[in-house]
This record gives sequence, structure tokens and C-alpha cells, in this order.
Amino acid sequence: MKAVVIHAAKDLRIEQRPTETPGTGQVAVAIATGGICGSDLHYYNHGGFGAVRVKHPMVLGHEVAGTVTAAGIGVESLRPGDRVAVSPSRPCNRCEYCLAGLQNHCLDMRFYGSAMRDPHVDGAFRQHLVADASQCHKLADRVSLAEGALAEPFAVTLHAVSRAGSLLGKRVLVSGSGPIGVLCTLAARAHGAQEIIATDVMDAPLAYARKVGADRTINVADDATALTELGRGKGSIDVVFEASGNAAALGSALAVLRPRGTLVQLGLGGDISFPQNMVVSKEIEMRGSFRFHEEFALAVDLMNSGRVDLRPVVSETRPVDDAVAAFELASDRRRSMKVQLDFA
Amino acid sequence: MKAVVIHAAKDLRIEQRPTETPGTGQVAVAIATGGICGSDLHYYNHGGFGAVRVKHPMVLGHEVAGTVTAAGIGVESLRPGDRVAVSPSRPCNRCEYCLAGLQNHCLDMRFYGSAMRDPHVDGAFRQHLVADASQCHKLADRVSLAEGALAEPFAVTLHAVSRAGSLLGKRVLVSGSGPIGVLCTLAARAHGAQEIIATDVMDAPLAYARKVGADRTINVADDATALTELGRGKGSIDVVFEASGNAAALGSALAVLRPRGTLVQLGLGGDISFPQNMVVSKEIEMRGSFRFHEEFALAVDLMNSGRVDLRPVVSETRPVDDAVAAFELASDRRRSMKVQLDFA
Amino acid sequence: MKAVVIHAAKDLRIEQRPTETPGTGQVAVAIATGGICGSDLHYYNHGGFGAVRVKHPMVLGHEVAGTVTAAGIGVESLRPGDRVAVSPSRPCNRCEYCLAGLQNHCLDMRFYGSAMRDPHVDGAFRQHLVADASQCHKLADRVSLAEGALAEPFAVTLHAVSRAGSLLGKRVLVSGSGPIGVLCTLAARAHGAQEIIATDVMDAPLAYARKVGADRTINVADDATALTELGRGKGSIDVVFEASGNAAALGSALAVLRPRGTLVQLGLGGDISFPQNMVVSKEIEMRGSFRFHEEFALAVDLMNSGRVDLRPVVSETRPVDDAVAAFELASDRRRSMKVQLDFA
Amino acid sequence: MKAVVIHAAKDLRIEQRPTETPGTGQVAVAIATGGICGSDLHYYNHGGFGAVRVKHPMVLGHEVAGTVTAAGIGVESLRPGDRVAVSPSRPCNRCEYCLAGLQNHCLDMRFYGSAMRDPHVDGAFRQHLVADASQCHKLADRVSLAEGALAEPFAVTLHAVSRAGSLLGKRVLVSGSGPIGVLCTLAARAHGAQEIIATDVMDAPLAYARKVGADRTINVADDATALTELGRGKGSIDVVFEASGNAAALGSALAVLRPRGTLVQLGLGGDISFPQNMVVSKEIEMRGSFRFHEEFALAVDLMNSGRVDLRPVVSETRPVDDAVAAFELASDRRRSMKVQLDFA
Repeated sequence: MKAVVIHAAKDLRIEQRPTETPGTGQVAVAIATGGICGSDLHYYNHGGFGAVRVKHPMVLGHEVAGTVTAAGIGVESLRPGDRVAVSPSRPCNRCEYCLAGLQNHCLDMRFYGSAMRDPHVDGAFRQHLVADASQCHKLADRVSLAEGALAEPFAVTLHAVSRAGSLLGKRVLVSGSGPIGVLCTLAARAHGAQEIIATDVMDAPLAYARKVGADRTINVADDATALTELGRGKGSIDVVFEASGNAAALGSALAVLRPRGTLVQLGLGGDISFPQNMVVSKEIEMRGSFRFHEEFALAVDLMNSGRVDLRPVVSETRPVDDAVAAFELASDRRRSMKVQLDFA
Repeated sequence: MKAVVIHAAKDLRIEQRPTETPGTGQVAVAIATGGICGSDLHYYNHGGFGAVRVKHPMVLGHEVAGTVTAAGIGVESLRPGDRVAVSPSRPCNRCEYCLAGLQNHCLDMRFYGSAMRDPHVDGAFRQHLVADASQCHKLADRVSLAEGALAEPFAVTLHAVSRAGSLLGKRVLVSGSGPIGVLCTLAARAHGAQEIIATDVMDAPLAYARKVGADRTINVADDATALTELGRGKGSIDVVFEASGNAAALGSALAVLRPRGTLVQLGLGGDISFPQNMVVSKEIEMRGSFRFHEEFALAVDLMNSGRVDLRPVVSETRPVDDAVAAFELASDRRRSMKVQLDFA
Repeated sequence: MKAVVIHAAKDLRIEQRPTETPGTGQVAVAIATGGICGSDLHYYNHGGFGAVRVKHPMVLGHEVAGTVTAAGIGVESLRPGDRVAVSPSRPCNRCEYCLAGLQNHCLDMRFYGSAMRDPHVDGAFRQHLVADASQCHKLADRVSLAEGALAEPFAVTLHAVSRAGSLLGKRVLVSGSGPIGVLCTLAARAHGAQEIIATDVMDAPLAYARKVGADRTINVADDATALTELGRGKGSIDVVFEASGNAAALGSALAVLRPRGTLVQLGLGGDISFPQNMVVSKEIEMRGSFRFHEEFALAVDLMNSGRVDLRPVVSETRPVDDAVAAFELASDRRRSMKVQLDFA
Repeated sequence: MKAVVIHAAKDLRIEQRPTETPGTGQVAVAIATGGICGSDLHYYNHGGFGAVRVKHPMVLGHEVAGTVTAAGIGVESLRPGDRVAVSPSRPCNRCEYCLAGLQNHCLDMRFYGSAMRDPHVDGAFRQHLVADASQCHKLADRVSLAEGALAEPFAVTLHAVSRAGSLLGKRVLVSGSGPIGVLCTLAARAHGAQEIIATDVMDAPLAYARKVGADRTINVADDATALTELGRGKGSIDVVFEASGNAAALGSALAVLRPRGTLVQLGLGGDISFPQNMVVSKEIEMRGSFRFHEEFALAVDLMNSGRVDLRPVVSETRPVDDAVAAFELASDRRRSMKVQLDFA
């Protein structure tokens, strides 16, 4: 079978790997679709991020869906033919964080396609994948495998919404409208935000934000006065989802937040500057949001019940053999939103 | 009467001002003691902080206690001879923030000795002060006026503790052991912190931290490995009170916090750099803490009941006529903790 | 003008009252529609509830909408012709609860159509009403006056949802499907509940619950096993909105809740029995929910933006002259859901 | 070795049982002291409580401390001679509640001396006990084994305090001053409650409450006006710990609570009546509190550090051979507070 393997920055290869057989409690899945994520792009463009570097060849990918082809001993919930989204999150369920219900902080996490550990944990951009049955969430007939492959990034944003607390009556700003920002807009809309304003420095992504429910969009590169207006008095925004990791965006976000407002940080920006005095004098809460746990099942359930429609987020689908071109396309925010690979 | 007036950076004068008469609901207070605060020092050393600048001569001071000398019409709670701590906080009780119970974010706040508004609001470093009776909190016999003058900075730290939520079972680090850090240690100890570690870059302040209840102190300039130890794994601290405003201190604080740990920010550092990715990947909560409201009455009550003893925090008392020398002394962290002026 | 006046149990009269003129900051409103609420029915059927008794004739009603006919001095936000929903809540904005942001617990509340105070506060079932401009919330063109008159009970349920905290990923049971229960279902659906099960002891109200978004309904008088199923293990429900005030319903609700589940109590049942040990052993949180404050504006905004459609909740509209018949109809849950009076 | 075995109501026997050998990860403990708990008394006086009945002979007891006599393979943290408090809580660490950090709601809990499961789980009133090393918490030299045996009920009350949230600035009422109520007073005092009022229907227990830190006590059987005074206006108490399970006490507690006040329910009263309308109109939060988890280690740590002194809570110590007399004594609230058995 084919797998998409990163060797080093700009060295991505399609390689043959042996097919595996499911063990007890496992299933084999014929992967149909895999979405390219920001961290995949970091490995591709920079060979990693921060201290995390690709040291050996590693299969990339953690946003996948496919069809069950075989089930190992003891698997009762799934059978061949079932269409599933596969969660890439594999906490140990034994460490102190798992036993505190914080599986996303597991001390022994084996997340797909991650170079945080050495040896690295291979990812799911491959034609056949063996996974624990508990990682595989059945998709309803109404949900395509392409949409199912969005369960993972959608779960990330559902987790961010859960970190924000209730959005009832809240005026929300989503800062940065890449795939995560756009899915945040969608997740916040589905959970009762009163008003959602989405920002970006380009027009193209903002069109996606409007498609999934933003009440208003601001191109902050063009329209500086719009943010100034939102920051009048002590600010007018209750909750910000900061999905850019950009220092200027963080500064603007803090400026438009009301006293006691909440900023949920999703974007990764490294060591950046921020206006500490504003955090103090407005008593702002900045909360990190990292991956997800129970939200993967919720993501699939919301799609299955038809309460959300994630399809507008996919901008392009490319065959696995064109993975390099797909990664180049996904690296260009002007030309793409979520780019998916077709493994069939 | 004498008042301590700031004209510009390094231009502090003792001036005569006319004595006022209390109106309806007001009392006259013969001020006995006034503590010099970090913001007083900013006006003295730099003429202000950030965009807040002294534009006209302004009476400084907001940490005061004294004896009631006269009561205006309608005042029933106080009578001449009562010894009181005076809250410098005067919210409007009409704006949207006051009506949401967030008086410390009042849109029309008139806080003593502050150049945030123009014309500035004069402070309480004066021999006679007319204040609303509701600002004046009676001290028990056991509490000296010098200790009473600590109610204000203690209230600031009680507010910080309230921002942290329950400290039951929590391992706490207090970052920076100036007067606010030391009072934070005391406030956290009085509210059930399981363990308190205080840090500073000097030894002298850490001796005060130990006196008020720190279980352990770390001079981070001398002992880098101690923090490294606290940061092992994903970190071991539940709550940080960051009272330095220093970028390196903030970075260290985030490094030693456990996933989902809380950092309450009190120190004001301007635009500083921070490790954003650490906030995200450990899902840390950074919460600003600004001034106080109901905590002033609580501060006085805790002193009155004898549950706390703030006296160890005062390092020096100087007569009002030596105010300039006192401000110089207070500006030198090696030689002083809290410096108070004697107005008698 | 005509007003609907309660004199005693079963003694409801249509009386003439003089029309008033709006003072400073006030407007005159020609009331178009008024919804009959459970408390109106208590006055009508029993002369009050608990210790609250009608001692003098009192105009009833607090769910109204109409058209502004005149504006007093200083009113800038409204002009004649504006269609408005009128909030019956008039907190003092001066007491300790108002200054803590808890206006629904105001010590000097003057809520329309309430005999809690003596003299009673007259209500809004009248053809002309003078109200503060701040009580009047403009309706968008898309919202009828009949729908606007539902803003008040909808605000009650939005407040209940805010009391429950975030509903993201929550399995919700709404216990009792009268007008408040049905609006709770609608409010919970609009704020992201993952699944909503509505119960009642009759089939007719459950049809309304399904119309506004319940995923499933259970007639608990017919189908005892359905609740048993929900209570298996330690229970399967995360949040209950208890809108019946019935002891058996409360017992069932506690039985189906998971450990650490939340029960928001809206229904008023007097002194009733409950399984205290179950609250302890499952560590359930029972939270009262009383009236509303900022949720009135939110209710109108959600209608104005088209995010909710409350119209299915109205079962009957009767002319004001048939008020007695309308009250009889509203008292019969088999034949009616929300009954409104037409004042035009 | 001797064990204290319940056969049926009023049928308690001292029996010989074989001594066990510690397996991997286990230690053998020579039990020195065992405290008699309310649930032990229920088994003794009534053969159980609610649906939980003693069906076979069962060793009672879950409040014990002793000295390690032998350690099994793999035990590194303990060695013979260590003095330890033994936690009776043994969650499975595998079920959905354990993996959500709610070990006290474990679906497969094996709590010492409990007839909830069948076969029952034997307790720790025995001269030799084999336990997992992880259950055994080392006592500091300053802590006696008798005090160590109070770790369990103290942990119960620390958990209740954690359920209440921060007590900073809170006026607390402890309703019922048996051993759990008195330890609640002590735990609340150690965690910063501003004021604590303890109540009971007898004078004797109230003397204990004062000894451990209650600011004020009220014998509610003698002094009805004191509670009336606390309930003036809408109430004056922020947090109630209800440790009686009595309906009248619950009613009084709700009456004295302020709007939005919190009642933490510890006492078990069966099906009792409560004023539901008061919960609604004051928006009170009633929260169950059940057993403990991480609070056992905290209890031991607070004793070890000398921050609390639990010794005043023990009223009597009796040799194990007098267990029946000890149970009779413990059943009489007028003559005893916490009664302990001496197993040496």
C-alpha cells in the first residue's frame, strides 16, 4: 500500500508499506480521505516546529476517514463495510492526567503523525490503517468520507468552544480564518454564540467564514478602523478564539475584549510579544486549547445528526500520488482552505 | 495641612493645602499613616507609566488609615475618634460594569492618586482627608493604624486570590516577592494553599516571604536548577501569582505550571514576550487581576479578627517631611519592603 | 382604555382605566398582544400562590408587545411607530444585589402584575401602557407582535440555560412540557445541546416539544420503562431542566441524571419530597432559576436575527373581551399551550 | 487476628480471622486505631440503610491507621515500621468515571466495609490488614496513629469544601455538628472561610465545634430567633455545609442562605421534604458531596505539616474487645463525638 512519508523539509515521498492485520480489539480501515493539517505543513515546509523535528522518515497525517475492511477478535461495534472517521488520539488511560480526565495531556500519548516522541509515531496518510476499534467512529449515511475526515479538526475547535464556556449571549471574534478559524466559527455558531465576527488579513479565507455562519468579517489588513471601533470604551467582545498565533492579532484581540473577557488561544506563534498590562487592567482570561478528547465523538455525532455541515470548508481534493502538489497548494492560503488527499 | 504632591518625575513636594469640611454622608479623617505603592513610585521615578502621565501637580497616595475627626450629616456608622482604613476606590455604581458587579472596571472610577483621568484625581497623602463614610472601614483595637494602612495592598492580593479560585490542595508559586508578592503569599496562606513557594531575584525580599508563611523560597538569580526541578514532566505547580511583570519570570512561571494550571497576573510589565505555544499545549489559564472591590472590607475584617498579621511587611516608617527620602528608599528593593509615611 | 384586573380567585374583570402620559425617559405603548403566564393563572385560579395573595384589585400580565405611540422627553432610542417587546422587570439598580449584577434578586423589584409587594404592582394587560424606554426592545420587521410577546417567557428559559452552563456535548432532559418547558427545549436547542429528551404526562404538550426541536419525547404516564432505561447504571442524562415542580418528576429527574449532573429547577412545587441520598451519592447539582435580566434583550435579538422561531408555541389568541374564557382555556393543558390575548 | 464483624442489626461480634500475606505492590499493616463512622453505626443499629442491607457477615470499618509490618514485591515507597493512614477507597481506574477523574463515582468501587456490593467488601476493623501500597499514606512523627485514623472522615469534609468552591470572604453555616459537621468546620476554617456558624440540636456537640474554630454556635432547639435573624432580608449566609440530613435543618439552611448561595449536602436523610420554591426564587445551588478521592492525601499532608489539629474531635477510645460498648457509646450523640477502637 501507499503511504505519505516525510523525510525532511520539502522531502515528502509516496512510499510502499506493508499492509497490517488487525489484532484483538482492532479493525483494518481502507482510508479514503485525509486532510492536510497545519502541523503536516510545518513538517513539510520546515521539518518540524520549535524543538520538534523529524529525525527519521515518518508517515504523516491525522485527519482521516475510510471503510472498515476487517475486524479483529472481540470487536463488536464495527463490521466490514462500516464507514468511519478515525481519531488519531491514543492516550494511555493510565497516567495521572488520564486518571484526572485530561487525556489530551496524557504523559504517554501516541498521536498519529507526530515527531514529539522518538521513535516518532507514524500517521494515517496511508491506504490501509489498523486502528483500535475505539478510535473508529461510525459515520451516518448522510455523511461522506470527505466530510468525515474533517471530524478531527472540527473536534479541535469543539474543544476550544468547550474551553470558552457557554456562548449564550456572547459576542465572539474569531481571529484568523484558516481551516481551524473557520471551523471555530462553525462550532461557535452551533453552540449559541449571539454574534460572530471573523477576521483575517486576506479576503479569500473570509469568504469561507461567511459561508459557515460568521455574521460579519473584517479584513484587518484593509480595515484598521473596524477593530478600533470594536475596542471603543473598554472593548465590546466577550470571547475571542485566537487561531492565528500572530502577535499583532493577539494584541488586537486583547484590545477589543471587554473586561473579564476570555481569549481562547489555538494558534501557535512561538515566543511572541503581548500587552501584559492590558491583560491585567481588563482582567482578561487567556486560555490555551490543545487538541481534544471526548469532542471527537461529538464532532461525528453533530455531523451524523445533520446539525452541522462541514463540507464548505474543503477547497480541494487531490489524488494521493499528487501529495507534494497538494502540500504546496495547502501552504498557500490565498488559493486554498482545507486540502484533502484521496487515497482510493 | 501638608500634602505630598507629585509635579513631575523626581519632583515631589510637600505642600500646604486647605483643609476641607465633610458634606452629607462624609467624614473628615486625620490621616496617620500612608504606605508608598508601586504606582506612587512610577509617578515619582518616571512621571507615570505607559500612556498615563502626570500633567498637573497631583496629591499622591492611596494606602492610608487615620482617625475620624468629624462626621457630616447622615453619617451613622462612624463617629469622631473611630480609627479607620480608607478605601481609595470610588466607583460610580451606575455604569454597565458597576451594574454587573464589576466595580473595579467602572467606566467612571475616581481612584485616589491616579493620573488616568484628566483632571487627575488627587490622592490621600495629606494630613486631613474628607471621604465618603462608605469608604471608611473601622479598625478593631488590636489593629494599629500602620497595619490598617496595609488594607489596600492586602485587598489587591485578596482579589488576586479570589481570581485564582479555591486553593484547597493547590501547590502555589508566588513569582516576585515585593510588597504585593509577599502579601499574596500571606493571602494565599490564609486561604488554604497546600504549599507556597516564593521566588525573587534577591535574598532580602525572600526573608519577608518566609516570615509571612512561604514554605520555601527560591532566589532564581542564584538557583536555576530549582525551577528546572519544578518544571519536570509537564510541570508541578497548580497556581502562580505573577507579581513581577518580568518576561523571564513569566516564562519560568509558565514552564513550572502543570497542564490546566492557572497564572494570576498582577505585575505590570508593558509589552513583553511570552511562550505562546506553552500556554496552548499545557492549556494554561492566564488571568489578569486588577485592584479590588469587596476585598477591602474583607482585608479589614481579617485583620480585625486577628486571622492575619500584616505587620511584618512594613520595613520602614518615615515622617511626611522626609517623603522624598522615603520614596528613594522605597525605590530600592534591596533596602526596603513596604515603606510608610507618618502624617501625624 | 381596557385593563384585565384580578379581584380574587375566579374573579377576573375587564375594566376601564385612565390612559397615562409618558414622563421623561418614558414611552407610551399601544399593547397589541399579551400572553397568559402560569403566575397569572395562579392568581386567577387560586388568588395567589404560597404566601403571595391578591389583597386589592390588580392589573395582571407581564408578557406583552405593542407599538410606541408617544415618547417622553429624553427618549432617543424609540419613536412612535416602533414595534416593541416590553420587559416587565424593573430592578432598582441601587441595592446590594443590583450592584452585584444580580438584578433578578433586587430587594426593591417592581415586576409587572405581581402581588409580592403591597400595594401590588399593576401589570401590562391593558390597551395602553407607559413604560421606561429602557424596558422596550425594538422588534425587527420579521417578528410579529404576537411573537414579540413571547420574549418574556423565552427570557426565563434563556436564563435557565445560562444557569446550566455550556450545553456542548450534553444530553438534556426537559421535565414538563408546558410553555416554559417547551421554550426551554427551544432555548437549549439554540445553544448547542447534543440531544434533548422532553417529557410530560400528556401527549398534547409533547407534540409542541417535538415541533421546537426535541429529539425524543416520553409520555411518562404511559411509558415508565423509558425513564428506567435512561437511569441505568448511574444515569445517562447530563442536564435536566425541571419545569413541572412535581415531586415525582423531580425524583425521576434525579434518577436519570449522571453523577455530577445538573438539574436546573424552574417549576414551582411548594414543599415537596425529594430523594436526598441520591443528590448526595451522585453529587448532583440542583440550581434554582428565577426570572431573568440581560436575557430579555437576548431573547429579542435571537428573534430579530431569525435564529429562533417561537411562533409554534402559541396555541390560541383571544380578544381581550374574552379574557375569562382565555384564562379558562389556558388553565387546561390538554387544550392549550400558550394562550395570548389580543388587545387591539 | 481479631476482626469486628457485623452479622445483623445489633449483632456485632469479635471474631478470629486468618492473617494475610502481602502480594505484589501490597503491604501488611498492623492496625492500631479504627474510628467508628456513621455508616458503621447504621449497619450496627439498623442492619444497613435504604436498600443497602447486610446479607452476610462483614468486617466493618474504614477509618484506620497502623504500622507497616511487611512489604510485598515492588513496593518502594514504604518499609516496615512506617506509620500510615489507610485509605478505604479502591476505585478501578478503568471505568468511564475513573477516566473522567471522578473516582468517587467509580462503577466498580470496592470501598472497605460496605454492603453496597454482594458479596460485600470487608472492612478494616481487624488487627492485620493487607492493602495496596498506594492506599497507605505515611504519617509524620508529629501525627499519632489515633489522629491518623481521622484522615478518612477529614478527607470527606475536605471534599465537601472543594465542592463549595473558594470560601474567601464567605459566611459559612455548618448545619449539624456530629463528627462530620465538626470536621467540616475545621476544614472550612483551614481554607479561609471568613466566618463560621455551627448549629446543632444539642449543646454537647457544639462545644466541639467551638474547639475546632467555629466563630459562633447556635443550639437551634433552644434558640429559634438566631436562625430567623440570619434569614432576614433574603438571607445572610453564603455557604451551608448540611451534615445532618434532617428535613427541618435543610429548610432552615435554605432560609438563611442568600440568593445564589450554595448548600453542600453531606448528611443522608432519605426521602425528605424541602421548600422547592425557595430554591427557585433565591436561585440556590444544592450540591451533593460524596466520599473523596485526592483529598485523602491532602488530609494526611495537612496533618503532617501541622496546619490542622484533629485531635480534639476524638471523644473516647476503647479496646477492640469492647467494640459493642463502643458502638453503643458512639450511637449516643449526647455522650460522644468520635469514638475510636484500639486494636493493639
